[in-house]
Amino acid sequence: MGADAGALNVVRANGGARPYRTELTPVSFLRRSAYVFPEKIAVVHDERRYSYRAFEDRVNRLASALLAAGIESGDRVAFLCPNTPAMLEAHFAVPAIGAVLVPINTRLDAGEIRYILEHSGARLVFADHELVHLVEDAAVGVIRVDETGDHSDPYEAFLADGSPDQFELRVDDEEQTISINYTSGTTGRPKGVMTTHRGSYLNALMSGLQANLRPDSVQLWVVPMFHCNGWCFPWAVTAVGGRHVCMRKVDPELMWQLFDAEGVTHYNAAPTVHTNIVNHPAAHRLEREIVVTTGGSPPSPTLLARMAELNLRPIHAYGLTETYAPYTVCEPQAAWDDLEPETRARRFGRQGVHNIVADPIRVVDEQMRDVPRDGETLGEVLMRGNNVMKGLHDDPEATVAAFDGGWFHSGDIAVMHPDGYIELRDRKKDVIISGGENISTIEVEHAIARHPSVLECAVVATPDEKWGERPKAFVALKDDETATEREIIDFCRDHIAHYKCPVAVEFGPLPKTSTGKVQKYVLREREWVGHHMRVN
Amino acid sequence: MGADAGALNVVRANGGARPYRTELTPVSFLRRSAYVFPEKIAVVHDERRYSYRAFEDRVNRLASALLAAGIESGDRVAFLCPNTPAMLEAHFAVPAIGAVLVPINTRLDAGEIRYILEHSGARLVFADHELVHLVEDAAVGVIRVDETGDHSDPYEAFLADGSPDQFELRVDDEEQTISINYTSGTTGRPKGVMTTHRGSYLNALMSGLQANLRPDSVQLWVVPMFHCNGWCFPWAVTAVGGRHVCMRKVDPELMWQLFDAEGVTHYNAAPTVHTNIVNHPAAHRLEREIVVTTGGSPPSPTLLARMAELNLRPIHAYGLTETYAPYTVCEPQAAWDDLEPETRARRFGRQGVHNIVADPIRVVDEQMRDVPRDGETLGEVLMRGNNVMKGLHDDPEATVAAFDGGWFHSGDIAVMHPDGYIELRDRKKDVIISGGENISTIEVEHAIARHPSVLECAVVATPDEKWGERPKAFVALKDDETATEREIIDFCRDHIAHYKCPVAVEFGPLPKTSTGKVQKYVLREREWVGHHMRVN
Repeated sequence: MGADAGALNVVRANGGARPYRTELTPVSFLRRSAYVFPEKIAVVHDERRYSYRAFEDRVNRLASALLAAGIESGDRVAFLCPNTPAMLEAHFAVPAIGAVLVPINTRLDAGEIRYILEHSGARLVFADHELVHLVEDAAVGVIRVDETGDHSDPYEAFLADGSPDQFELRVDDEEQTISINYTSGTTGRPKGVMTTHRGSYLNALMSGLQANLRPDSVQLWVVPMFHCNGWCFPWAVTAVGGRHVCMRKVDPELMWQLFDAEGVTHYNAAPTVHTNIVNHPAAHRLEREIVVTTGGSPPSPTLLARMAELNLRPIHAYGLTETYAPYTVCEPQAAWDDLEPETRARRFGRQGVHNIVADPIRVVDEQMRDVPRDGETLGEVLMRGNNVMKGLHDDPEATVAAFDGGWFHSGDIAVMHPDGYIELRDRKKDVIISGGENISTIEVEHAIARHPSVLECAVVATPDEKWGERPKAFVALKDDETATEREIIDFCRDHIAHYKCPVAVEFGPLPKTSTGKVQKYVLREREWVGHHMRVN
Repeated sequence: MGADAGALNVVRANGGARPYRTELTPVSFLRRSAYVFPEKIAVVHDERRYSYRAFEDRVNRLASALLAAGIESGDRVAFLCPNTPAMLEAHFAVPAIGAVLVPINTRLDAGEIRYILEHSGARLVFADHELVHLVEDAAVGVIRVDETGDHSDPYEAFLADGSPDQFELRVDDEEQTISINYTSGTTGRPKGVMTTHRGSYLNALMSGLQANLRPDSVQLWVVPMFHCNGWCFPWAVTAVGGRHVCMRKVDPELMWQLFDAEGVTHYNAAPTVHTNIVNHPAAHRLEREIVVTTGGSPPSPTLLARMAELNLRPIHAYGLTETYAPYTVCEPQAAWDDLEPETRARRFGRQGVHNIVADPIRVVDEQMRDVPRDGETLGEVLMRGNNVMKGLHDDPEATVAAFDGGWFHSGDIAVMHPDGYIELRDRKKDVIISGGENISTIEVEHAIARHPSVLECAVVATPDEKWGERPKAFVALKDDETATEREIIDFCRDHIAHYKCPVAVEFGPLPKTSTGKVQKYVLREREWVGHHMRVN
């Protein structure tokens, strides 16, 4: 191959760059769709409709205005916005100039936001008009987004100062950081997960393939874009030239309207969101299937059955902020069609297998040896490869710890089934150890969720003098339904081992994160008041 | 970002590799599908059916047997086979050990094949039993593929010596060469186009997205896998866990049987093949749509109309061996639905726009300035980026020439329409594209010139309904010599592959410039009177 190497060196010398290599960046997807589909509607928000040409013009304006404001390659630019056009635009304009996007969770308080702005070293923050009061005291420049689209909107004024002309993308290395996504860890302070252009590009292609995105796809924005960059869908939908339908907040009534009015074909969300959607009075069977990527926790058999009735086709994925969101997908098997609905739903509720662009997932013991494929032995879930984060911003120690042994440690506890599918059993911090036996809180939750009156539930450890820890259930009932503590416990005892059943049941709404994930730690804190440890 | 760099250095030091990077290789797609869908039928050929587990086992056996035979990373391994399981297996086993696949056109003659084996430096050649006589004199090891699947088949015996166990893929650098595909150029001798693991991976994902491949997709193998690695579909179909249905030769009757019997959802071919298919007596409207990627020349309005009747949905793509086949796609626009069928067909017949993983295509004048978007000004088509070849094997000069100015020069002449779609009009090089295969006019001329009665000759493309283009020879005989059209054609058939031989011969003096150069364009003009393009 010596002769080839010679040729390549000549080619390389000829102009410097290699003509057979372009750095991967998801920003290129917008460039292409604006080229191919300039007149097609790309973004819908209430009465506003932007064509792909307008979408790109606005992104170019934002990018050039950021440059004019002194933002340089590697600088961080924060966005504190719901799922609005500005948030979509941020996903292209900020990386286009080589800067790093810092999307901020809109449900945080002022102190938490201040910490993120300071820790990330953001030079500017764009804040929605309903949230701008949260950054009043921030020591960085603030640009308010009024969301009117009018000239009087400071965001629009900022764009007006920019240029709609195309410029050369400042992506010198596809492994440069594209986004820093802050997520809560075990230590209290959020950590800044750094992702790359390369990883985002590959995940966007994978998502498009997995969710069967096409040029006529219409994505309704349910999962927040601040959460893992909306699971890379701002880039994936744009890549195929599909349409984004924005929505400021999750409103099931509005969703059912938009499903019909906008011809929605796709949306992504956590099961708790789907539960509200499928139980809404406006729910009706759709003529055209909607592909629903769901993650965060396994969908219950009840939810799956209801989704099928309504023509919502679920894709069950699992991942973390550290893995650009979905890392696994529960690929349905043809043989499952012959199973009882309950069994099939349980199969479908497994987190599954690594997706097309991911490396094989592992479940390992304390010595990092793979656990047997027995569906029983608990171990920690490890990942690595192109859809694992680059590291934690400004935190070398935590980065090294997260990558112990060359693998990303998820902190999630799972089993490996004989068919190679993983199934989560607990968070590492969340395992209940009762009388020396491990209890999976998720298993208990599944049992309770099968009770016909239960809308949703969460199980945490509560201290117990005799057993060390016992499970306690927090239950939200469906509207107009009733149940007693005794009923719930007895129901559980009919379905799972008695030692796993809750010792107590408390009724009421569950505390949740902005993405709809139940905040188990809030419940646990409540149970362990006065204890110096959270295990026993 | 200094702190991050510090963290990353620590992470990098920790085990050497970066946990957030895996080299891209399409071999990983088979590993994953064998993991996820072990029992699912992956490959069908006549009565043989291999599950994904069996597919991977066979690939592992082939790979380890190659290693045992002394094949090392970078070594070339040739395959001279029709679309059979062995050919699919080659696309995974050879690159898995870091070796380079050399797929050989099955229609070449012994001399042409010998040249390719020598030029590529192949260490081994696997040859189908119907073709093995063509490599009898080759100076490399030959393994016959009987295609029986029995122990007595030398190919099967070779596999039997290997191990089905998984091994670590020898892909140290995603830019290493995965395949060398020989294609005819202007110089007579075929050139060896080198492609990479990275390019093949990205193109496979793109193809899957563009053709809407899903786990339930069934690909019928029509386009030869020796041609641009079957447009990357051996990898794309495997990536989604779809099914390959092999076919030794294109047989419309068999195709219609397989469409129904195997539930075919996809096939790829040149328009000439489609024409035979849609006009076959067995043609009937299909219940389930088949997605048909077509390339090589634009589909006619008649063909498009007939395909619609039969429920074949065409995707029109364009590219060259140097671009992993499809580089552009003619993305249909919603507005075209309102056009007259004839006008719509002409729009659809344009070569279109760069695909999702490609850089924007250019049409330039002699000074490499972009031509205006007027649909009239002719220019050469240029490409660059991740789906452009790495270079020409063992030919530094031709590589440098192909990449003049940092862009790959296609030699195709096109216009740029106002909507940014390109449309081919002519060819800079003296290459005839017949049924999707390149024919070098110079090579044909050389063959004819060896006839003792021939003084000089020129070969140009003539339009052909079935093949798009066919070679036509203009021959000036020596004084007092005679020869018939039949004699010239038969003489050619003794020396070069039959598909390269002229379909017609015209005798008489050749038109020349004042300096005595043959004016081929005059001959071409004469042949293409009444056509608005000079290519088909």
